[in-house]
Amino acid sequence: MEYFGLDDFLLAALKEDVGTGDITTNSCIPEKNRSYGEFVAKSEGVVCGLDVARRVFELVDPLIEFTELMQDGDFANKGDIIARVEGPSRGILTGERVALNIMQRLSGTATATARAVDQVRGSKARIVDTRKSTPGLRTLEKYAVRTGGGHNHRFNLADGVLIKDNHIRAAGGIAQAISAVRENVPHVMKIEIETETLDQVREALDAGADIIMLDNMSNELMSEAVKLISGRALTEASGNMGERELSEVAATGVDVISIGALTHSVKAMDISLKFRLKEVGT
Amino acid sequence: MEYFGLDDFLLAALKEDVGTGDITTNSCIPEKNRSYGEFVAKSEGVVCGLDVARRVFELVDPLIEFTELMQDGDFANKGDIIARVEGPSRGILTGERVALNIMQRLSGTATATARAVDQVRGSKARIVDTRKSTPGLRTLEKYAVRTGGGHNHRFNLADGVLIKDNHIRAAGGIAQAISAVRENVPHVMKIEIETETLDQVREALDAGADIIMLDNMSNELMSEAVKLISGRALTEASGNMGERELSEVAATGVDVISIGALTHSVKAMDISLKFRLKEVGT
Amino acid sequence: MEYFGLDDFLLAALKEDVGTGDITTNSCIPEKNRSYGEFVAKSEGVVCGLDVARRVFELVDPLIEFTELMQDGDFANKGDIIARVEGPSRGILTGERVALNIMQRLSGTATATARAVDQVRGSKARIVDTRKSTPGLRTLEKYAVRTGGGHNHRFNLADGVLIKDNHIRAAGGIAQAISAVRENVPHVMKIEIETETLDQVREALDAGADIIMLDNMSNELMSEAVKLISGRALTEASGNMGERELSEVAATGVDVISIGALTHSVKAMDISLKFRLKEVGT
Amino acid sequence: MEYFGLDDFLLAALKEDVGTGDITTNSCIPEKNRSYGEFVAKSEGVVCGLDVARRVFELVDPLIEFTELMQDGDFANKGDIIARVEGPSRGILTGERVALNIMQRLSGTATATARAVDQVRGSKARIVDTRKSTPGLRTLEKYAVRTGGGHNHRFNLADGVLIKDNHIRAAGGIAQAISAVRENVPHVMKIEIETETLDQVREALDAGADIIMLDNMSNELMSEAVKLISGRALTEASGNMGERELSEVAATGVDVISIGALTHSVKAMDISLKFRLKEVGT
Amino acid sequence: MEYFGLDDFLLAALKEDVGTGDITTNSCIPEKNRSYGEFVAKSEGVVCGLDVARRVFELVDPLIEFTELMQDGDFANKGDIIARVEGPSRGILTGERVALNIMQRLSGTATATARAVDQVRGSKARIVDTRKSTPGLRTLEKYAVRTGGGHNHRFNLADGVLIKDNHIRAAGGIAQAISAVRENVPHVMKIEIETETLDQVREALDAGADIIMLDNMSNELMSEAVKLISGRALTEASGNMGERELSEVAATGVDVISIGALTHSVKAMDISLKFRLKEVGT
Amino acid sequence: MEYFGLDDFLLAALKEDVGTGDITTNSCIPEKNRSYGEFVAKSEGVVCGLDVARRVFELVDPLIEFTELMQDGDFANKGDIIARVEGPSRGILTGERVALNIMQRLSGTATATARAVDQVRGSKARIVDTRKSTPGLRTLEKYAVRTGGGHNHRFNLADGVLIKDNHIRAAGGIAQAISAVRENVPHVMKIEIETETLDQVREALDAGADIIMLDNMSNELMSEAVKLISGRALTEASGNMGERELSEVAATGVDVISIGALTHSVKAMDISLKFRLKEVGT
Repeated sequence: MEYFGLDDFLLAALKEDVGTGDITTNSCIPEKNRSYGEFVAKSEGVVCGLDVARRVFELVDPLIEFTELMQDGDFANKGDIIARVEGPSRGILTGERVALNIMQRLSGTATATARAVDQVRGSKARIVDTRKSTPGLRTLEKYAVRTGGGHNHRFNLADGVLIKDNHIRAAGGIAQAISAVRENVPHVMKIEIETETLDQVREALDAGADIIMLDNMSNELMSEAVKLISGRALTEASGNMGERELSEVAATGVDVISIGALTHSVKAMDISLKFRLKEVGT
Repeated sequence: MEYFGLDDFLLAALKEDVGTGDITTNSCIPEKNRSYGEFVAKSEGVVCGLDVARRVFELVDPLIEFTELMQDGDFANKGDIIARVEGPSRGILTGERVALNIMQRLSGTATATARAVDQVRGSKARIVDTRKSTPGLRTLEKYAVRTGGGHNHRFNLADGVLIKDNHIRAAGGIAQAISAVRENVPHVMKIEIETETLDQVREALDAGADIIMLDNMSNELMSEAVKLISGRALTEASGNMGERELSEVAATGVDVISIGALTHSVKAMDISLKFRLKEVGT
Repeated sequence: MEYFGLDDFLLAALKEDVGTGDITTNSCIPEKNRSYGEFVAKSEGVVCGLDVARRVFELVDPLIEFTELMQDGDFANKGDIIARVEGPSRGILTGERVALNIMQRLSGTATATARAVDQVRGSKARIVDTRKSTPGLRTLEKYAVRTGGGHNHRFNLADGVLIKDNHIRAAGGIAQAISAVRENVPHVMKIEIETETLDQVREALDAGADIIMLDNMSNELMSEAVKLISGRALTEASGNMGERELSEVAATGVDVISIGALTHSVKAMDISLKFRLKEVGT
Repeated sequence: MEYFGLDDFLLAALKEDVGTGDITTNSCIPEKNRSYGEFVAKSEGVVCGLDVARRVFELVDPLIEFTELMQDGDFANKGDIIARVEGPSRGILTGERVALNIMQRLSGTATATARAVDQVRGSKARIVDTRKSTPGLRTLEKYAVRTGGGHNHRFNLADGVLIKDNHIRAAGGIAQAISAVRENVPHVMKIEIETETLDQVREALDAGADIIMLDNMSNELMSEAVKLISGRALTEASGNMGERELSEVAATGVDVISIGALTHSVKAMDISLKFRLKEVGT
Repeated sequence: MEYFGLDDFLLAALKEDVGTGDITTNSCIPEKNRSYGEFVAKSEGVVCGLDVARRVFELVDPLIEFTELMQDGDFANKGDIIARVEGPSRGILTGERVALNIMQRLSGTATATARAVDQVRGSKARIVDTRKSTPGLRTLEKYAVRTGGGHNHRFNLADGVLIKDNHIRAAGGIAQAISAVRENVPHVMKIEIETETLDQVREALDAGADIIMLDNMSNELMSEAVKLISGRALTEASGNMGERELSEVAATGVDVISIGALTHSVKAMDISLKFRLKEVGT
Repeated sequence: MEYFGLDDFLLAALKEDVGTGDITTNSCIPEKNRSYGEFVAKSEGVVCGLDVARRVFELVDPLIEFTELMQDGDFANKGDIIARVEGPSRGILTGERVALNIMQRLSGTATATARAVDQVRGSKARIVDTRKSTPGLRTLEKYAVRTGGGHNHRFNLADGVLIKDNHIRAAGGIAQAISAVRENVPHVMKIEIETETLDQVREALDAGADIIMLDNMSNELMSEAVKLISGRALTEASGNMGERELSEVAATGVDVISIGALTHSVKAMDISLKFRLKEVGT
């Protein structure tokens, strides 16, 4: 993952959590004290964020060794050891919470994604994220979606087209909106448009939409839409998909199912750091 | 809320979500087009983040007017209108997702907090957060906890003392750990220590701890601990409190209940922006 | 133009050029002195960057009034007055060079683009930029290309696909490369592939490429390629296009012509600020 | 070159060009793939920016080895190999465009400077730059001017004095302006003043100017001015020098010739990266 | 000392002092020249900032070796060698002033603190700092206070409570103010209140204040206050303590003496770098 | 004062001092409460930093009105009111300490400078600062020196030449050092060289130095040096000038006296904010 802003993000997170220093640790634990710890899964799920956690500890103290026992994308059962960390106790305690806060969230998203991917297995539907991500964490959360077996939708408003009803109304109709967009946006982008009825689907098809979003449609309606479109455009099911039975959605034949809940309402995976002080000098 | 980093946070969020511009909107909607929109609660909950949302739109376009119909801390029923936004359509669409992403998360935390507070109503227990917050959002999430009627725990490792078992072992015992901390940390701070057994509680009391955390104890054990402590120190119930029946925890007589799930596993409150284009010139 | 980083960019530019203060001006010109100046075209070209220049002066001193007499995209003849600036002399002198440095460069790019667009007028070919932009100025330079009547190619490596020969070799062939990309990238993106021979064009077509780049081909070869493709993919002419006769390239029927020289080798448009001190108090 | 902002500049450039990752490369090229590449001059010129390019690759991936075959300031003929790069293919492709964009621009400036220096060889005139540089790149562009054999003028408005006609008018005359400046600016700075006529030259001399700029004068007039000044002040020829025959300007006896075009209208030197995939494992 | 902002602080300091390069050194001293230097105490005092100085040189040039002969907190007599530095001459000269500016200030604060601590030796009083620190240097200055044997007061307005007369008046009285604060602030914080009379002390005690500041009181009054309080709250002497005889203040029995002058009016310790060029190649 | 980094500096200072909010004030003082306060000189001195203080309050709350009763450079007697501040109580209390910390330091430097200037009144010597400033505050401290009637030396290593003994030794002698520097640095800079003996002064003169620093010389020696130089170069007295009788130094006839203590060992001017709560609604 190329992420040139990662260090800035992690240093900001460390400043936030450590402030001007861990006064408890610095009072109780000698500078030379060394420890050994294990990151243990306390609930099952798809692990994500190991490289990020490794980088957290490198930034805190280069003497800390972080050893991955599992890899991003692996499924951990309750009790599995995910990684080991070893080195100066102060540094390990300093980095612990930031590393966990990130790993738990990303693993939560990866796990939710993997569950959704499982539900549509056997179909051609790909599970994708939305722009409903946590401010500041979009790059990481989209990585977690990929780690869970999902795919990404557009990253932001600049690198993908999605024509919604307000755009249509302002442009004067579906055909006009698609034409205006095609005239203006880079030729490397497909044009996606939101539809809620079969009539809109037909209009979008006629206007040459590359992707047709089927928004808040019943599975029956989606099936009809998919048949109508018949491969002439990609189809994307959207609208509270987090609460739908995804195998049934996939059975309608849609190409893509986008789920906001993968990032907006994540249950953190429970991971903890089991920590042991080592004798000084060992 | 004094938050001198808010603008930096919001501009980063806008860069993340808008990138180099909303190509769909800019292609379809004329610069002079104006719109009117309403933020509507699609699920019930405690509203939080209205001032932040207002600032998002100010940063996007000062011509956008944001009118709050509810205030942070108010309870919204499904269908309630929370705020109105009016002005240049392009700007409203540009700021929409960032404003919603923040409001939905903060309202989720405020709502979860309010539910916890409700469960302990009538007791003296205060509901507090932990350091299990989203990297980069701690200031806002702690504000959301206060908005929901809760209180904050320490902000970070520098502004509060919490002695855990590793500290105790490294220091050579509870008394030694407390003594080391008292000798070193600013005199303005109370000293909190984690305990798991009544023996540890006794030792902590003897050593003069100001706050005794009762970690992962059964309600029965906590009741005994509270009786034992008998007001000589504050007591804090901790450990997967998000999954406990809080009224029963509060009935043990503890002073504080800390809940990581208020920030680490939030279900976003469902809020949407209902949007209407206005005739140009109106 | 939504550009949330503009102020940061301009403040950095002002710090670079003004340092800790204009010691000449501050020694010679009283703080209350006011001036009037005109931005005059000293060579002809398409004006670009007026809003940016306005913002420069706002950042320097909000008392400076900047009045646009032309708009971005207008063609200025030698001697035309582009904008007026009026207010505190010190501030005008402080902002002058940064405003000019930006306007001259952007107008240079807009002018070069407009010339290219003129050469292909009547054809369907659109003129687009490349990633050969000045580090730090890509957003502004891409805006200048649009201002000159051109279009943008992908903004960066993350928001568009362009498969080159190294990718093909690593993937094991054109079909494999396109398949690997399609499997992995967001469904909103078209897939572009670079070709140098008709055989490669055929392979790319068979593999379902959305856009076929015709790289460093003669016009004859491009004509054949366009015929072969026959509308089943978009075609992009590429390779030292800045030195080709563009009307002839367009005559081959390509959809897009990409020109690195629009941004990598720009001749600044000559614009100067004619400046007059005003009597104090007037 | 001490440039403490270089990493910030390069990371910003990489973020701009790479965004959230090179989706084409990451889809087609395995992480372990290694490559070998050569930076080749496709037009002749003075090479500049090799250390900067090396740093780009270090920031992208420390495993990439960058070997300079030429040094900044060397003249490359068409076809010469400037540097070699070897290591992980993904990283090389990620850094390629940023490294080239910088090297090509800086080499363009160095080459233009070297041409100007050649034209005045044998005279005492030094070639210097101006403040007409690219916003954000001044430190690098001034380095390129030195690399090409030129010298630098003041870096910004704070570290050099240049009294122009507006300053003179506001101060009430040449003598008054020079006196006001001398009274106020640090004693380490020379005082330069702009003149357009011999009368102004005389006044400037009488007032004790250290440097007299001869602005937009014919060569004849400059010769007279130089004689008049006769070594009592340094002389600087200025005003569209990019379009003058510099040997003739130098023949007037001026000490310094300042040329805005060295930085405001640069033709990038044509450099490309010839790239070869290596067998995995070799 | 965990200080995640240290590099940012030092790079900013280096940019400030070095700008775009040390033109004197770069003109006179060849790149390969190496030097050896010693940091020598020219006045006696408690040394502080050695790790910071080491980091300055690391940031300037990793080839510079910095060897500490004393440690932070050691007392240096005039003439003592504090540290050695060895490596490329250019880098040593580039980092010299920043390293000295920081070490001299921090050592000044550490020295002043140590003097204060000496004056109260034998008493139970601890010497603490205030918020009267240099903007941007608080973390370092508070570290210097600890280095000199002192303790820290709250770091900022968010991590400690100090109720002053305006707070009392706005709240409607001491009891009301304390009650309002206790209701709102995190349970981990003690409550400190400012008093100027014995009556106020009594009120504060009754209201359950944890710390009572005795502001601008005579030693006699303080003695009475301490007796009155009798261990039921911590006591802090405050108000121009930098100009008081501290042994007498301590003799009143106060727990804490806070001194603004430790940071707001520091006499830099005189330290200089004795520098020797080495033969190239040695 | 043009200082484009001022807001960044002040926001960082506010973040440092306010953190995530003033918990005492926010608990005790209602949001609508308004106050009135006066900045009062508690020791005499030259006031400096009023515009900076004004900006602090603007950044905290635009509703706060800051009225200057004195101006930067005015001399305040003990008890003089320097400025008034009026508006929301919370904001005034939030900004108070940062505003005072800055004003007190800058006024301290301005006062020390004014004292030095007074001592040399009647002579031609100007008092200047050095690079021994507080990291991060150089721009402000140099402004304070000017405010106190002094002048500035070079801002940093890039915008002035000062040849010291190490440079001389590395270059092979005074003549060689001056020649090397003249050949390389911008023509706008004077060349200053450090001397400790009359022989060195002679050599420097012969080599054409523009400024000769007389370092750590007795007044007698300086007098001789000044006579020897006889106006052919500027002369600068240097070396612990903070501890010398400046009138006697000035009597030697030197042009410039540089004093590190103006910035490295400042006694803050004592200024306090007298504060009064206003009735709500008035």
